[in-house]
Amino acid sequence: MKPVAVRNIERADSSVIDKLAALGVATCHEANDRQGLLRPYLRPIYAGARVAGSAVTILTQPGDNWMVHVAIELCQPGDILVVGCTADNTDGMFGDLLATSAQANGVRALITDTGCRDVADLKEMQFPVWSKRISAKGTVKETLGCVNIPIVCAGEIINPGDVIVADDDGVTCVPRLAAPAVLAAAEAREANEGEKRQQLADGVLGLDMYQMRSRLEQAGLRYVDTQADLDLSSG
Amino acid sequence: MKPVAVRNIERADSSVIDKLAALGVATCHEANDRQGLLRPYLRPIYAGARVAGSAVTILTQPGDNWMVHVAIELCQPGDILVVGCTADNTDGMFGDLLATSAQANGVRALITDTGCRDVADLKEMQFPVWSKRISAKGTVKETLGCVNIPIVCAGEIINPGDVIVADDDGVTCVPRLAAPAVLAAAEAREANEGEKRQQLADGVLGLDMYQMRSRLEQAGLRYVDTQADLDLSSG
Amino acid sequence: MKPVAVRNIERADSSVIDKLAALGVATCHEANDRQGLLRPYLRPIYAGARVAGSAVTILTQPGDNWMVHVAIELCQPGDILVVGCTADNTDGMFGDLLATSAQANGVRALITDTGCRDVADLKEMQFPVWSKRISAKGTVKETLGCVNIPIVCAGEIINPGDVIVADDDGVTCVPRLAAPAVLAAAEAREANEGEKRQQLADGVLGLDMYQMRSRLEQAGLRYVDTQADLDLSSG
Amino acid sequence: MKPVAVRNIERADSSVIDKLAALGVATCHEANDRQGLLRPYLRPIYAGARVAGSAVTILTQPGDNWMVHVAIELCQPGDILVVGCTADNTDGMFGDLLATSAQANGVRALITDTGCRDVADLKEMQFPVWSKRISAKGTVKETLGCVNIPIVCAGEIINPGDVIVADDDGVTCVPRLAAPAVLAAAEAREANEGEKRQQLADGVLGLDMYQMRSRLEQAGLRYVDTQADLDLSSG
Amino acid sequence: MKPVAVRNIERADSSVIDKLAALGVATCHEANDRQGLLRPYLRPIYAGARVAGSAVTILTQPGDNWMVHVAIELCQPGDILVVGCTADNTDGMFGDLLATSAQANGVRALITDTGCRDVADLKEMQFPVWSKRISAKGTVKETLGCVNIPIVCAGEIINPGDVIVADDDGVTCVPRLAAPAVLAAAEAREANEGEKRQQLADGVLGLDMYQMRSRLEQAGLRYVDTQADLDLSSG
Amino acid sequence: MKPVAVRNIERADSSVIDKLAALGVATCHEANDRQGLLRPYLRPIYAGARVAGSAVTILTQPGDNWMVHVAIELCQPGDILVVGCTADNTDGMFGDLLATSAQANGVRALITDTGCRDVADLKEMQFPVWSKRISAKGTVKETLGCVNIPIVCAGEIINPGDVIVADDDGVTCVPRLAAPAVLAAAEAREANEGEKRQQLADGVLGLDMYQMRSRLEQAGLRYVDTQADLDLSSG
Repeated sequence: MKPVAVRNIERADSSVIDKLAALGVATCHEANDRQGLLRPYLRPIYAGARVAGSAVTILTQPGDNWMVHVAIELCQPGDILVVGCTADNTDGMFGDLLATSAQANGVRALITDTGCRDVADLKEMQFPVWSKRISAKGTVKETLGCVNIPIVCAGEIINPGDVIVADDDGVTCVPRLAAPAVLAAAEAREANEGEKRQQLADGVLGLDMYQMRSRLEQAGLRYVDTQADLDLSSG
Repeated sequence: MKPVAVRNIERADSSVIDKLAALGVATCHEANDRQGLLRPYLRPIYAGARVAGSAVTILTQPGDNWMVHVAIELCQPGDILVVGCTADNTDGMFGDLLATSAQANGVRALITDTGCRDVADLKEMQFPVWSKRISAKGTVKETLGCVNIPIVCAGEIINPGDVIVADDDGVTCVPRLAAPAVLAAAEAREANEGEKRQQLADGVLGLDMYQMRSRLEQAGLRYVDTQADLDLSSG
Repeated sequence: MKPVAVRNIERADSSVIDKLAALGVATCHEANDRQGLLRPYLRPIYAGARVAGSAVTILTQPGDNWMVHVAIELCQPGDILVVGCTADNTDGMFGDLLATSAQANGVRALITDTGCRDVADLKEMQFPVWSKRISAKGTVKETLGCVNIPIVCAGEIINPGDVIVADDDGVTCVPRLAAPAVLAAAEAREANEGEKRQQLADGVLGLDMYQMRSRLEQAGLRYVDTQADLDLSSG
Repeated sequence: MKPVAVRNIERADSSVIDKLAALGVATCHEANDRQGLLRPYLRPIYAGARVAGSAVTILTQPGDNWMVHVAIELCQPGDILVVGCTADNTDGMFGDLLATSAQANGVRALITDTGCRDVADLKEMQFPVWSKRISAKGTVKETLGCVNIPIVCAGEIINPGDVIVADDDGVTCVPRLAAPAVLAAAEAREANEGEKRQQLADGVLGLDMYQMRSRLEQAGLRYVDTQADLDLSSG
Repeated sequence: MKPVAVRNIERADSSVIDKLAALGVATCHEANDRQGLLRPYLRPIYAGARVAGSAVTILTQPGDNWMVHVAIELCQPGDILVVGCTADNTDGMFGDLLATSAQANGVRALITDTGCRDVADLKEMQFPVWSKRISAKGTVKETLGCVNIPIVCAGEIINPGDVIVADDDGVTCVPRLAAPAVLAAAEAREANEGEKRQQLADGVLGLDMYQMRSRLEQAGLRYVDTQADLDLSSG
Repeated sequence: MKPVAVRNIERADSSVIDKLAALGVATCHEANDRQGLLRPYLRPIYAGARVAGSAVTILTQPGDNWMVHVAIELCQPGDILVVGCTADNTDGMFGDLLATSAQANGVRALITDTGCRDVADLKEMQFPVWSKRISAKGTVKETLGCVNIPIVCAGEIINPGDVIVADDDGVTCVPRLAAPAVLAAAEAREANEGEKRQQLADGVLGLDMYQMRSRLEQAGLRYVDTQADLDLSSG
């Protein structure tokens, strides 16, 4: 793709987005058939943030944060900046000045497959970032990239307008059109978990609650009483 | 080893285990001749936990947490679940439901050579986990593994019933039969450290306190006054 | 270099050093033409420390912390110990005893391209460390290295007496002779940032504030209205 | 995306594909505006292969190669299998039996973001594979994935039918619709390189051939005669 | 374990060992229930070697190869040296002199979770090595370890006398007592593969040969004709 | 250091350099007190090259190879280009055109802490390269760096004019002024190795040849006859 910025993108319904945020990453990821999770090397720069928003995507070149400026203009309140890069790079493409600008434009968070800096300031501002690395390495503004095209961030495809959910467990991407269905599945899952949690807290074993015993037996699990009963010659 | 679960394991004396916890990882590891430390990529999901317990070992397949359910049934109060995997994997094999079940059965902690999720919940529950990665990636229950056989976790052999000690410095394994001897050595070491610490705080140099000067000289250490005195042609 | 310890090194002016600390890593690194940043795998063992000091350099062998003892004797109040190693190594070369000794001698921090242990104690002592890894792995005192020669730590050359600046963003090295010039540039930069921050907070875009629009156009950035307007056949 | 296999995909013109193969990865990648290169951790299992083909994409789960069987049925002669995975995984999802089946169906190569095994056999068969790792780790057939949906392989988006070019330099992806334009640009680039190569072989410097001297001067490059002329206080 | 060397170990039958070598790593690993494979970062220093032998195990300290000398004396013809280390280390613990000594004592190969050097010489001598890294980094002889105790090498437990099988696909460990059963299973597997290979070469699909179609359907795999038929709102 | 290129550097005597090449990396590294070895992630792009030369050093920015052009003009026959980078980067900064230019100017090799491409061409040209990665990723010419200042390449300080020795074992750096002393030590070492090799080939054990037995005993090594004799309670 030659350098290009797409001005307008479609977004999911904001009430769907906010409900997904409340449900959290693990639940949304499971409800999405265990797809969409960004690789777990992305970590929050501070603990406790939980957020969801519409992805404004940015494709950068290593060591160059020029396109982040281009992207901020195209954001709407509730958006989340998502940065991919054409090569592995950990440079600090985002710091307190860009965070100030992003926050002033209603951006909720940054997800970046590169580095981030000024983390003490960002924590104080309560502008959450999930990044590959914390790095003070400065960047240049010399080579173009793209805004609002499909990108890869931390191993997942992010389309502009996809719903990004992020918390202490990491970051997951829910495709925009699937967001209502994923929300429904996630809410069903959540409704179901309270009772399970109570049973488990009462000491009911997962083996019984999930009725795993016969399936384990069919799969061939043997029980022996002690180490001495192991048959070491069986391969 | 074909899929198997060993019901009964021998454990170290609980008073020995609790004293090892109080001494901490670094001291127990040193007292065990600097052996048994799990690779330092294992990190606690929250700071401040310090724990010891008897290892209930689990060998899993990548992306599959079925055997964790099997293991919980075989735990006694004071045990620690230790998970190895047949291949490198960071999937989130353990979350708040399993933690609820483990805690209800008296399990003190989880050590896993894979991933862990629901970390905000686990912190709130005060169920400590040391893992290779925090990851919301869900897992399946399709392929058997083993419980209570010798496994590798983070580069170390863990035998069922070995004593696991874990704190902010990481995780170490004390072989069950050696636990009393290691405890004795650790206590001796600890007794010795208070005086050393005071001397060092008073400004006595390690060079003098440990009488290193003559050994350094014998080993060939030269002192020069300034950089200008370095002989750059000496190789 | 055969094993050698250099007793006396030149240091930058202490007022310059303390001003660099106040400015922080990101600003000092930028002011130094974006050079000198140690690789970002170095992380603080606890958040919130901000420090600068003169480097006392140590070249160690893997798994051997003997030279750290040699170095502490050669430190002056305000110094920072900086450890390089002849091979990749994460062993815990530094713990609470060495920290007690270092602190008693006025050392402000440790930067190490290896591991560190007793991190709970170090945090309580408020002795900050930036390390490659937290590891309880004990070390021996068998093989000599060097003190106060040029070393590599986390990918950067550190000369004895260079100014080390470290905070939550990482660690950067300012060459001793360049410290006054870097300070001047950093202060100029800082003076300039307040107004920028205010403008950005007021919603002025970076595109306008930095007058990027014409340069982006010259570089060839195209804007399109929607994804449908992308020319997928253009390469 | 729920488990799904798409039977029919569109492909680029075969003469375009074969010409891209002849031009090689580096040239095609440059001609595609330096985009589309898969991360360089993908390496050929043997040297000397050079190939291009239409991507049949496969999304797998870690440790599970079931979908590869599904994909082979959907291949046409000239296709290349491209495997992505929902989590980092290096298991040996592909060996000599699958290669025999793939080769019998006209598949030209495999690109996989996981592992590959039987590499001695594959070399003998001359079935080239670019993989993240060589690993004999066996896989199961328990969990579904997808075939012929957009996937991520080694950090790049691969759409079904995109043109994959692979050689000793690695693997690049040329979007299907852009393939003719990229070919044109690549041929223009190649035509241009012969003369450049001759000039350089004759000793003409790149500085002169590319007329870099004035641009370097404008950018601020200084020349000094010797190390002694360096101004170490300039920052 | 305090430093100790065990003089005598039990070994598997040599004819079993040699047959396992001929079957190769992938087949032996599968026949052993997909267990025992050493992590795939171990790579041969040259292609084409295929070997099996009885493990003489060595536990070393980082940067120290003293125990390799101790181990060679305890080897018998047909043995394979297997080196583990108490911490991650890539130093070149083994070179042409040790290889000469090992070869003179009938040792068939070295498997090391550290580094190896003099690789051009080792290739000329046809002494195969599988190592984590090729590194010329020299080592010392200062700190004891153990010989012939259970160790971890590349993530797997190796007991003294276990059968090591190594080829271009990597290294696998077959427990000594299980070796006859694994051999039987491997030979059965191999006998079975010839016919399968022929069918696949004739164009029979794995889907049909393994009768996967109904299982795929039960598992929920849907087929659609084209991308246009994908239901993007289904989650 | 502000962007600068140093025109003239001092070099070691060419006969010393060529003799170091013949001795190889492992021997030169040992003779240099086991210092100077570049991290072993640097690998040759093809096997069999052995070379030594004077370092012309280049400091680049990630993804930018502009300074390589500047450096080639400053090379003399017998030089080796050594590239460091201000951040981790694997982009393909060097390919067949630059190799043609370098070779035309008498440059013997390239050592780069980044990536390299056109490796099939480079092998055909017999222009050896040791790099961190093979990558076709193209680079820009936008940001200045330095030539012939001290740099870090793969974890070691390289001063302009230092002697670089590279072969299949990796790359080592011998400081220019120390080259004669290192050569003398390396030749003494080499002279000594022939007899050792013969003794070891004749079956003499290292334990005896190096007279290690009494030192092992003093260090505390115990021998036991069988596993059954191990005292598992000793810690």
